[in-house]
Amino acid sequence: MTDKAYNPMTEPRYCGIPTFMRTPYTTDFKNLDIALVGVPYDGAVEARSGTRMGPRQIRDMSSMMRSIHHVTRINPYELCRVGDVGDVHFEQIFDVRASHKDITAFYQNLDEAGVTPISAGGDHSITLPIMRAIASKGPLGMVHIDAHTDCCDEEMNSKYSHGTPFRRAVEEGLLDPKRTIQIGIRGAANSDECWEFGAKHGIRIVYIEEFTKLGVEKVIEEARFIVGNGPTYISFDVDGIDPAFTPGTGTPEIGGLTTIEAQTLIRGLRGINLVGADVVEVSPPFDSSGNTALVAATIMYEILCIMAEAVDKKRKMNY
Amino acid sequence: MTDKAYNPMTEPRYCGIPTFMRTPYTTDFKNLDIALVGVPYDGAVEARSGTRMGPRQIRDMSSMMRSIHHVTRINPYELCRVGDVGDVHFEQIFDVRASHKDITAFYQNLDEAGVTPISAGGDHSITLPIMRAIASKGPLGMVHIDAHTDCCDEEMNSKYSHGTPFRRAVEEGLLDPKRTIQIGIRGAANSDECWEFGAKHGIRIVYIEEFTKLGVEKVIEEARFIVGNGPTYISFDVDGIDPAFTPGTGTPEIGGLTTIEAQTLIRGLRGINLVGADVVEVSPPFDSSGNTALVAATIMYEILCIMAEAVDKKRKMNY
Amino acid sequence: MTDKAYNPMTEPRYCGIPTFMRTPYTTDFKNLDIALVGVPYDGAVEARSGTRMGPRQIRDMSSMMRSIHHVTRINPYELCRVGDVGDVHFEQIFDVRASHKDITAFYQNLDEAGVTPISAGGDHSITLPIMRAIASKGPLGMVHIDAHTDCCDEEMNSKYSHGTPFRRAVEEGLLDPKRTIQIGIRGAANSDECWEFGAKHGIRIVYIEEFTKLGVEKVIEEARFIVGNGPTYISFDVDGIDPAFTPGTGTPEIGGLTTIEAQTLIRGLRGINLVGADVVEVSPPFDSSGNTALVAATIMYEILCIMAEAVDKKRKMNY
Amino acid sequence: MTDKAYNPMTEPRYCGIPTFMRTPYTTDFKNLDIALVGVPYDGAVEARSGTRMGPRQIRDMSSMMRSIHHVTRINPYELCRVGDVGDVHFEQIFDVRASHKDITAFYQNLDEAGVTPISAGGDHSITLPIMRAIASKGPLGMVHIDAHTDCCDEEMNSKYSHGTPFRRAVEEGLLDPKRTIQIGIRGAANSDECWEFGAKHGIRIVYIEEFTKLGVEKVIEEARFIVGNGPTYISFDVDGIDPAFTPGTGTPEIGGLTTIEAQTLIRGLRGINLVGADVVEVSPPFDSSGNTALVAATIMYEILCIMAEAVDKKRKMNY
Amino acid sequence: MTDKAYNPMTEPRYCGIPTFMRTPYTTDFKNLDIALVGVPYDGAVEARSGTRMGPRQIRDMSSMMRSIHHVTRINPYELCRVGDVGDVHFEQIFDVRASHKDITAFYQNLDEAGVTPISAGGDHSITLPIMRAIASKGPLGMVHIDAHTDCCDEEMNSKYSHGTPFRRAVEEGLLDPKRTIQIGIRGAANSDECWEFGAKHGIRIVYIEEFTKLGVEKVIEEARFIVGNGPTYISFDVDGIDPAFTPGTGTPEIGGLTTIEAQTLIRGLRGINLVGADVVEVSPPFDSSGNTALVAATIMYEILCIMAEAVDKKRKMNY
Amino acid sequence: MTDKAYNPMTEPRYCGIPTFMRTPYTTDFKNLDIALVGVPYDGAVEARSGTRMGPRQIRDMSSMMRSIHHVTRINPYELCRVGDVGDVHFEQIFDVRASHKDITAFYQNLDEAGVTPISAGGDHSITLPIMRAIASKGPLGMVHIDAHTDCCDEEMNSKYSHGTPFRRAVEEGLLDPKRTIQIGIRGAANSDECWEFGAKHGIRIVYIEEFTKLGVEKVIEEARFIVGNGPTYISFDVDGIDPAFTPGTGTPEIGGLTTIEAQTLIRGLRGINLVGADVVEVSPPFDSSGNTALVAATIMYEILCIMAEAVDKKRKMNY
Repeated sequence: MTDKAYNPMTEPRYCGIPTFMRTPYTTDFKNLDIALVGVPYDGAVEARSGTRMGPRQIRDMSSMMRSIHHVTRINPYELCRVGDVGDVHFEQIFDVRASHKDITAFYQNLDEAGVTPISAGGDHSITLPIMRAIASKGPLGMVHIDAHTDCCDEEMNSKYSHGTPFRRAVEEGLLDPKRTIQIGIRGAANSDECWEFGAKHGIRIVYIEEFTKLGVEKVIEEARFIVGNGPTYISFDVDGIDPAFTPGTGTPEIGGLTTIEAQTLIRGLRGINLVGADVVEVSPPFDSSGNTALVAATIMYEILCIMAEAVDKKRKMNY
Repeated sequence: MTDKAYNPMTEPRYCGIPTFMRTPYTTDFKNLDIALVGVPYDGAVEARSGTRMGPRQIRDMSSMMRSIHHVTRINPYELCRVGDVGDVHFEQIFDVRASHKDITAFYQNLDEAGVTPISAGGDHSITLPIMRAIASKGPLGMVHIDAHTDCCDEEMNSKYSHGTPFRRAVEEGLLDPKRTIQIGIRGAANSDECWEFGAKHGIRIVYIEEFTKLGVEKVIEEARFIVGNGPTYISFDVDGIDPAFTPGTGTPEIGGLTTIEAQTLIRGLRGINLVGADVVEVSPPFDSSGNTALVAATIMYEILCIMAEAVDKKRKMNY
Repeated sequence: MTDKAYNPMTEPRYCGIPTFMRTPYTTDFKNLDIALVGVPYDGAVEARSGTRMGPRQIRDMSSMMRSIHHVTRINPYELCRVGDVGDVHFEQIFDVRASHKDITAFYQNLDEAGVTPISAGGDHSITLPIMRAIASKGPLGMVHIDAHTDCCDEEMNSKYSHGTPFRRAVEEGLLDPKRTIQIGIRGAANSDECWEFGAKHGIRIVYIEEFTKLGVEKVIEEARFIVGNGPTYISFDVDGIDPAFTPGTGTPEIGGLTTIEAQTLIRGLRGINLVGADVVEVSPPFDSSGNTALVAATIMYEILCIMAEAVDKKRKMNY
Repeated sequence: MTDKAYNPMTEPRYCGIPTFMRTPYTTDFKNLDIALVGVPYDGAVEARSGTRMGPRQIRDMSSMMRSIHHVTRINPYELCRVGDVGDVHFEQIFDVRASHKDITAFYQNLDEAGVTPISAGGDHSITLPIMRAIASKGPLGMVHIDAHTDCCDEEMNSKYSHGTPFRRAVEEGLLDPKRTIQIGIRGAANSDECWEFGAKHGIRIVYIEEFTKLGVEKVIEEARFIVGNGPTYISFDVDGIDPAFTPGTGTPEIGGLTTIEAQTLIRGLRGINLVGADVVEVSPPFDSSGNTALVAATIMYEILCIMAEAVDKKRKMNY
Repeated sequence: MTDKAYNPMTEPRYCGIPTFMRTPYTTDFKNLDIALVGVPYDGAVEARSGTRMGPRQIRDMSSMMRSIHHVTRINPYELCRVGDVGDVHFEQIFDVRASHKDITAFYQNLDEAGVTPISAGGDHSITLPIMRAIASKGPLGMVHIDAHTDCCDEEMNSKYSHGTPFRRAVEEGLLDPKRTIQIGIRGAANSDECWEFGAKHGIRIVYIEEFTKLGVEKVIEEARFIVGNGPTYISFDVDGIDPAFTPGTGTPEIGGLTTIEAQTLIRGLRGINLVGADVVEVSPPFDSSGNTALVAATIMYEILCIMAEAVDKKRKMNY
Repeated sequence: MTDKAYNPMTEPRYCGIPTFMRTPYTTDFKNLDIALVGVPYDGAVEARSGTRMGPRQIRDMSSMMRSIHHVTRINPYELCRVGDVGDVHFEQIFDVRASHKDITAFYQNLDEAGVTPISAGGDHSITLPIMRAIASKGPLGMVHIDAHTDCCDEEMNSKYSHGTPFRRAVEEGLLDPKRTIQIGIRGAANSDECWEFGAKHGIRIVYIEEFTKLGVEKVIEEARFIVGNGPTYISFDVDGIDPAFTPGTGTPEIGGLTTIEAQTLIRGLRGINLVGADVVEVSPPFDSSGNTALVAATIMYEILCIMAEAVDKKRKMNY
């Protein structure tokens, strides 16, 4: 995607074909450490649709990102080879299971090439097929930021909606509930099973009320303790954040995290054994300002910084 | 939905719970001649989604409608009993075929009760299952306003997308291609099969260029000749109209009909044997002004006027 | 409002405090021939409100206007002294009659000073109190562009809503129905009295269907014949134009005039005895693009050109 | 509004004719404990209009609500019979006093039927006529969240604008100032009388600065102490919240409450003797995202939970 | 940009990194016949800015385009090798002359490689430096669609604003005024020099009024006659079209061409000796619907079809 | 701008030609203590443009402001003569240096007349030429709220972009780095020189993380200590605030100050020796709600209150 002659990162923000973070587009996984992936899929949404358009807008707004982090001074591009590998290709977009298979296949290729993915959704159902590819060596731990637990058994008579992925992941042995923490949970429900599943299986649920009371530092401490040193995934639903910041999402719940809290939370996970991450549920049609996509792009950048360190460290240990 | 004490039609336009045209909500089909139906379904769309939210916004904007038509002076509410029967209920919104079955079942109930439906979509795939219910006594004729023929064989490897309904309808014997006219067709395609199917089976395609050359009056004449006296359906995709008027749709094509032309076209069909109609592909998130829904509501009102006459006439003939 | 040192008309369009057409603000009526007036009033609206914010947005967009007309090459600023006299001041904005009195008083001052007004509304109820000031020497003729006749007897149990001004004006002897033409009329109604009043009193109603058939040139001819040489008012409701051009209005009706037709119509009235004009019903909250206000500002400019000629001619004749 | 056959609460959020919270529409007050009421009135506003369109958008967004509260686990629908009783009908929308009478009459009917109302405005002037109906047995206490005290003596030479209701309510003996607390007050004023009235009559005013310093828990404590066990009303103006969360309002003041604080505040009032409540000043045209209406709907749901407990408790005590 | 494994043109419209028309991104000019170029520059605009963001949004909306033209059945991708060559790179974006030099240098590279460019602006000042590269063998003819002649001598004391390019081009011998036609001209001006320059030098100006009177077919005839067989450029300013269709532009003028007229005009130029083209003045921030960019993308596709034929024919003649 | 007969401050908010805070427009500097100035310039922006339109929208929204501050009870209009002096006039808007000279000249006139300015931008490059006029008697101290230090050496190969003003100001001896504090700094950068310049020269940088940790009161304390009694300038970039509050800006960075914090900060500077201030980087096209301009207007009002006290005090000391 980029000429030798110039550095896209230093171009005016509105220039060029928008790849994630203005990294080079590539389909050659061998030359990558970290892949930025688009998953334009919203076929499992029972509320307002539109997240199929998320990856494009996140790519566009991600041009606002630059290289050196102002707090940690990490420059992820100096630690790792980072590229945009494009979007998952879907054969049958109207069939949820077939689409989930396409996702799994795409990430298996990345996994085999030893590339760690950060994904941009798409609805939250995509995390399940991603985990099916990534958790090949055993169940993952997870730090999950969201308004909803996404642990329903069924939604609209389906086992594979965007409200069910983590129940399935636990059932399929992809996710270790005891190494899982859910942060920012809130909003009324028609049944309490979405909250009770986690309670029963050992998932730590930090409702927004407890989050506010504890403060972000204590929650970070607890999250680090829970996920420990095992392989860990970050799943970040933008509706975890308050819709004043991220209105562009399908099932907004008022009373959420601020962006400062969310950023602090991600930075607080520096050093964990990060094997994958996603930012999901960005629905551009519901945010005329584009701020939701800016938040998503910035969260991806924050994750990229700590992931680049983790990948770099692991590589060095392997030598 | 309405008190005896007051007439919703004369209330300020912003008052009350929005039913289509401010008609009474009812699920008792026996007391109805014409049913206004919402079909909030967009599970078969390969472009921008959002038409699942169409019926609600059309209901809201339809409060702008009143009773007496300024040209024909028809008052449909004096000729027929008209009501809003709510939305089709879906059991499995993530399964296209199951959803289509739910639609068919809903319209079979209406059909058995002798009620003629005007539907608000939803994506264009809904017309196929509606026809399965309505065309029980033989294939229908159709006046179809659209930018696209919707006669593809497959889209995204599916036979039942919003680009295929009329090919299926012909194949299933629901639609008589020789009594079908498609008006406003335009826009590039990746294969010419979408245009050739109709040509091969005798569908009359009036591309927008020919429409402009002939003028609306000649096209009306031809449409009336083609559908004749047999039972006829009107399917109105708002992308048949130019997106300056109807930006709120998933696959806009510039260079379409004006609203004056569209209204004249509908009025010109006065007297045909109208057995059903729909207005589809209104996607509210892509139109901040709401004009698309206003256009859709007005087209529904225009259709209601000529349908009320047709139903009234048929009823009188039966006596 | 302007320095001697520079010509606001040639400044970049986004500069300066926005007066109508970037003319000087003045409250000294003696030095004016034509006054541009804001009437920020929407207290008589039974549909969507917001026209109280019309004058400000029209002022803002009117900076797009320049001096020499591209067809007639009229430069109104060379023919007449034109200024922005600010907004009518209201003492009791929650009382329709009191507000109408404030309007009348303001225009009586202009009238006594021999200044001809072009007004920016506000809802259409404002034309009645304007006429009460201007028609002091006898009933006026009128060219009225609108989707609605605004000749209802009552609306929401009020005689003075934005749907009734011209019935009142005829009754009060301010408007000569035989010298009145209404152009662009359309849209359903709950009673036909709004159309029948004009028919009964000799108002010429050109429904949009007839307008389309006749063409703008024939309608101009007829309008000129009807208003003749007597003092004539132009009242321009932006909903006369199709809402694709002017979505920012309270009671949009699809299927209206194009802007080319509207501009041609105004230019066609060159030479009539123009004593006042208004452009009303601009409701900024319903048009995020601002195009409605741009249309309104341009129509004001078109009127200004022919009015400047008329005023200039009259002045010369008086010498 | 609902079939026996299905539960609207579990339908996809975009389906069905939008009633408040998807409760059944009814005009039969006998079968209700709590009524959700729309008051589409903005005739007493001196700033930006548009709240007449509030109830419709709140109804639409309230489909996002579900039944069980995630903190208190209250399911209001199990405790009480809750329904949408539609909108107040206005006879003379251009006359403030007449409109206020229509409001009072509507709520007297509810009051006589023993139904407790939660209302959606509309401008803040509506609370006065609601109190005239509800406070029949003696003055009410009030928890009032707002940027403004709404205790002016006159606004635009009117005693009954949206800036005056609580001064009138005190004067008319409907509101007990000593049992009244106003929270979130801020913003410049042209006179200090709006702040001094309360000070003089014993209203407790918690300016936003003091609110921030005390924290929400202390303010809750004080509010509970002030209103005590007497009958109490909650009046919630969405401009009490910061316009980053609720831009869709007529007189936004920056620097307001967060939604978390507002929700915590309402929950903190659990157990008070709640006899009525409203959420007012939602003006949809100024919020393209709809978040303001989502906030309003959620606040209504939060109030509904504590009101259902209060009503249920009272009913049990009466047995 | 594309895998071997799949055809981006047949992917869902919202998928993938957006290149113009979903063609492959390439900087290897040797393998191209036609280059699609972005010129994100708005440094010479005296009205509303924002066209620097035009190329990105046009790329995004151009995914709506497909391959086979519905009227001519031309598939440009079968006739020519077409690619997206990215954006012009600017060294000093705050310096108009330096930026123009960067543009010229970029197009000289294309010209030397024998590649014909279609450009997406950017403001209209970019056409001058493009012509400096392309017109190396002698002055070009031009079909120019625009509301403005862009033939001012100076704007804001600059010779190189977006209102002056064609005066400079004539002066520099890049443009043959006698082989130039300007279509759609309208809108007031502060001086008549912008119109008189063309008149004096033999440019044919078709004001919108004459365009309407003649009709598009006659104008095509005249345009073909004027440009003849010599090398010809098409410069398409989206403000030539009415702002109801293209609100997203800096200096909108109401009363412009319809999109049908614009498309017909381009198609009517089939067979001319086309050596370059641009579509300019798309300013995304002023169009929340994106329709302006859709119009621009479609006009680019229409031009691409006739250009592919022209390039193909020329190539065959050279053999 | 104002009649004797009425007080614009008490008019409905939507009335009248919008001057800053509804103060009188004047170009007679002799009768002023404090001037409100518009600087509609965005020629030095490397990201999204549009701040040229800032002053107009801030003027419009500033009508929401009133006279008496709700915390300090300061009425600035009783302490000082305050007026809107219009916009800086630019001779060559396409030349950054020439434009900066125009700005300096304008403020020199104000300075010579002894008028203290509060400016509305425009991009942040304008502060440099303002300081060139104001810092005539020696370097200023500064309280700078911003996401960025604006201390780059070059941006896009320019020394005078909106990212460089304070480096230039230090170099030119206009700004005393030791009396400068920057608050709210955050966001990634391509080089750390933007942060290191300040560190090296003694500027106190309060990153948002430290701000959150210290709390606003401690930061105020430190700011007061740093600027001391010397002449001090406040430069307020709206991107210092979180884009949930101020989306309408060119380079938004998530995770910023709240408006309450910003207001508290300004109020905390009461009593400092304030000689000038600006609020910059408001880009209206990126905020459809207008909240950014409302924030900017309110911050201007907050500054006006403490500046009026400072000016009043100084004047009294001079007697």
